[in-house]
Amino acid sequence: MKETYIKEFANVEPKNPILIEGLPGLGLVGKIAIRYLIKQMKAQKFAYLYSPHFPYFVLVSKKGNVRLLRGSFYFWKNKDGKNDLLLFTGDSQSQTIEGQYEIADRMLDFSQKHQVKTIVTIGGYRVETDDKPKVFVAATSPDILTKATKGGAIVSDSGSPIVGTAGLILGLARFKKIDALCLLGETRGYLPDPMAARSVLEVLKAMFNFDLDLAGLDEDIVKAEKMVSRLQKIEEKRALQAEETRKEEDRKTTYIS
Amino acid sequence: MKETYIKEFANVEPKNPILIEGLPGLGLVGKIAIRYLIKQMKAQKFAYLYSPHFPYFVLVSKKGNVRLLRGSFYFWKNKDGKNDLLLFTGDSQSQTIEGQYEIADRMLDFSQKHQVKTIVTIGGYRVETDDKPKVFVAATSPDILTKATKGGAIVSDSGSPIVGTAGLILGLARFKKIDALCLLGETRGYLPDPMAARSVLEVLKAMFNFDLDLAGLDEDIVKAEKMVSRLQKIEEKRALQAEETRKEEDRKTTYIS
Amino acid sequence: MKETYIKEFANVEPKNPILIEGLPGLGLVGKIAIRYLIKQMKAQKFAYLYSPHFPYFVLVSKKGNVRLLRGSFYFWKNKDGKNDLLLFTGDSQSQTIEGQYEIADRMLDFSQKHQVKTIVTIGGYRVETDDKPKVFVAATSPDILTKATKGGAIVSDSGSPIVGTAGLILGLARFKKIDALCLLGETRGYLPDPMAARSVLEVLKAMFNFDLDLAGLDEDIVKAEKMVSRLQKIEEKRALQAEETRKEEDRKTTYIS
Amino acid sequence: MKETYIKEFANVEPKNPILIEGLPGLGLVGKIAIRYLIKQMKAQKFAYLYSPHFPYFVLVSKKGNVRLLRGSFYFWKNKDGKNDLLLFTGDSQSQTIEGQYEIADRMLDFSQKHQVKTIVTIGGYRVETDDKPKVFVAATSPDILTKATKGGAIVSDSGSPIVGTAGLILGLARFKKIDALCLLGETRGYLPDPMAARSVLEVLKAMFNFDLDLAGLDEDIVKAEKMVSRLQKIEEKRALQAEETRKEEDRKTTYIS
Repeated sequence: MKETYIKEFANVEPKNPILIEGLPGLGLVGKIAIRYLIKQMKAQKFAYLYSPHFPYFVLVSKKGNVRLLRGSFYFWKNKDGKNDLLLFTGDSQSQTIEGQYEIADRMLDFSQKHQVKTIVTIGGYRVETDDKPKVFVAATSPDILTKATKGGAIVSDSGSPIVGTAGLILGLARFKKIDALCLLGETRGYLPDPMAARSVLEVLKAMFNFDLDLAGLDEDIVKAEKMVSRLQKIEEKRALQAEETRKEEDRKTTYIS
Repeated sequence: MKETYIKEFANVEPKNPILIEGLPGLGLVGKIAIRYLIKQMKAQKFAYLYSPHFPYFVLVSKKGNVRLLRGSFYFWKNKDGKNDLLLFTGDSQSQTIEGQYEIADRMLDFSQKHQVKTIVTIGGYRVETDDKPKVFVAATSPDILTKATKGGAIVSDSGSPIVGTAGLILGLARFKKIDALCLLGETRGYLPDPMAARSVLEVLKAMFNFDLDLAGLDEDIVKAEKMVSRLQKIEEKRALQAEETRKEEDRKTTYIS
Repeated sequence: MKETYIKEFANVEPKNPILIEGLPGLGLVGKIAIRYLIKQMKAQKFAYLYSPHFPYFVLVSKKGNVRLLRGSFYFWKNKDGKNDLLLFTGDSQSQTIEGQYEIADRMLDFSQKHQVKTIVTIGGYRVETDDKPKVFVAATSPDILTKATKGGAIVSDSGSPIVGTAGLILGLARFKKIDALCLLGETRGYLPDPMAARSVLEVLKAMFNFDLDLAGLDEDIVKAEKMVSRLQKIEEKRALQAEETRKEEDRKTTYIS
Repeated sequence: MKETYIKEFANVEPKNPILIEGLPGLGLVGKIAIRYLIKQMKAQKFAYLYSPHFPYFVLVSKKGNVRLLRGSFYFWKNKDGKNDLLLFTGDSQSQTIEGQYEIADRMLDFSQKHQVKTIVTIGGYRVETDDKPKVFVAATSPDILTKATKGGAIVSDSGSPIVGTAGLILGLARFKKIDALCLLGETRGYLPDPMAARSVLEVLKAMFNFDLDLAGLDEDIVKAEKMVSRLQKIEEKRALQAEETRKEEDRKTTYIS
């Protein structure tokens, strides 16, 4: 394997497909969103993306089997609407700069092959807040941008960077004449963040009229919030002790001098 | 995108053109100088340089649009003089060694294609001083070097390194039989330095008889100087406090022992 | 040398061969196991693997001669059983990500050329224990996995990573339709660990009915255990002194305040 | 420039040439030795080696001219003996692993083209000593090794690594059927070490019966020794002060507790 390549092992014939991408990144927002879509929609896995730019280890899977790190494409037949879905997530981002560009390129070639109309990439946007996560959008055309803002997204600030595959797909999409947009959910970023993923999915649902129940994320969100408040309490306690220690030292200093 | 490439989207027919290059580097001297030239001369953007060796993120531009990191070429029609100008600046230097050589190579191919007579590269030269920044010059031929020294530049010391695209273009230019020179403005280097850029532009103006008003940089220079003196005051205060703390500790030590 | 390649310098005609691989890694488990097999079986060296992704130094060998870092293939003619053996070990793993994939690819091409039926890779699994090292197994097919568990190995946990050549060979083997399994011996990992190697060899012996005397490892195991207990005593002493120092400081603090 | 290449700008017809290589490394032993040979023998520069794996800066040379980092080949016509000399030194080693292998490969291709009979590479061997530096040797054939030991060199210990171009040329030489040896002069390694270079040159002189006066190195050796003893005094003083500080603190501690 000298280059990134995509291997299709099931034949799919998507109708006006939309490709939605979410690789691991800040708060795992994209990966959580895609995995939830796959599960809820019972999408069918049909292709793998392999790359020599992924980390050089393999993972033990079920029953002692082994597999390379990879990305996976899933297909969802939309019986009621006009757009079928291709869903993509994976184990890792590329570990090299050249690999980042190569993977985004291969994903766009694959999109052309399947006559993808629109690509949506999902990521996280780092922010410290307890509010419901907002969703920022950037896009390759005003039409698709407007569709996202009508769905509840806020236009990204000029100058913001979008790092990794989610960003490079948009940057390279114009050369392939494919419309693309990126949805970034607000997240603290250091823990898996299903709340940010839900915000992004709400925008997607509104944009494309998916029949999608988001209640399945609630349990994960409650768990994640407990984890955050536990970490915050630990941090507060640590800060308090540091303060105590400082005062104690002040007292000693005063006593001596 | 496997390699660096340049995409021209407007047709230009430059007459005896000079290419002036300034990518981000020490004090952003090159980038500030080129951007000022573009603005003052109302130069026309006509080509982009893309590279898989730039950092792997994209930037949100105006109105939520997205673009790859890139370099941009601008064209200025010189109605009164004999040399049209091509101006080049961009978002970033290459992130890999091989990319640094590749980008300089592509810029020289592009220069040959447009029959560029002379290439000027601009950078910063790190120095701690409050004086008006001097400008150092190095060049591929004595003629062009002399022209620069007549314009107020000082010949660079033997053994000085010139890092990045500004340097490699000169190093590789001899293989393409193109004259090239590099102008380095003195700068502290850690903040954008419009004063160093003005010094460089003064040399350029004298060398090529540009009709160029540099007063437009004055406002930026005043702002930059305020920033520097604010940082210097913070640093002085910090040094003073450190001194106080040290004396205080000396007193305690003396008291105890 | 632009790419990894394998140079055969002796002609071998292996019958239904099994390839057993063990490059340096955690506790040198794989390398120790392979070297012991080579020595006990008097296997014959017949090929080298070279790569520009190995570290850029050479080693002085016997009598002042010099050699590149490399991997070495050995051949063992199995006079009594049905599977001949190819044994592989070397000086180093690849230093680059792309090289890791390239070396595993070349090893699989080589295996196809010699009609290898099964590949066994050997590595270490980090754990802090004084018990007899367990052996974990992962494999590309249930049959070969079962054979290993009957030989005493335990199925690896789902989600465990297997790093480096030992892992990538398994990950890439499915594309070449070669069965492969990985045996990981438990090891602390920071010292050469012949005990872990013996555990792995016991599984191999049981799996393939090798006539293999493992007593030759006992001396090395005794030495290694002495080294470990010496290091543990040093560490305990260091921890005790740190504790003393802390108490001493507590006393002073109390006295002063 | 996508790859390392060598550009010849003067026509030379060497007779049974020996190539002697010395790039920057520990104590600059190789570079100092080659530069001394060039100067004493008035060798003629005839070729440059360029590589995109050298660091990405250029150097200002005399009179404000600029040049890429490079290696340089020199030719010396041996009027009295049977072997002409090719001498090679340069600004830098490769900055990437692949580049290290590529540069050694190109040097061997070049050697084949000019029918080089023997290659000598020169480097440093790190050791803390005030004695006259010994010279270690490793080689691709016993004959050439013996010649070096007769000239005063000591056979390198088995297992020693030889890092960089000096080592890889030997490792790759066997594939090109060229004899090669490496001479390593003992050096502390952190300062330019003309004494180590002289030891190496003494061996070379004895091996090939060069008419070579080494007295020209004496001045540099005296300077280097002064520098070393100055640094040693500074270090001793620093150690003494640290000791004083420690005792002072012990006294205070005793007084308080």
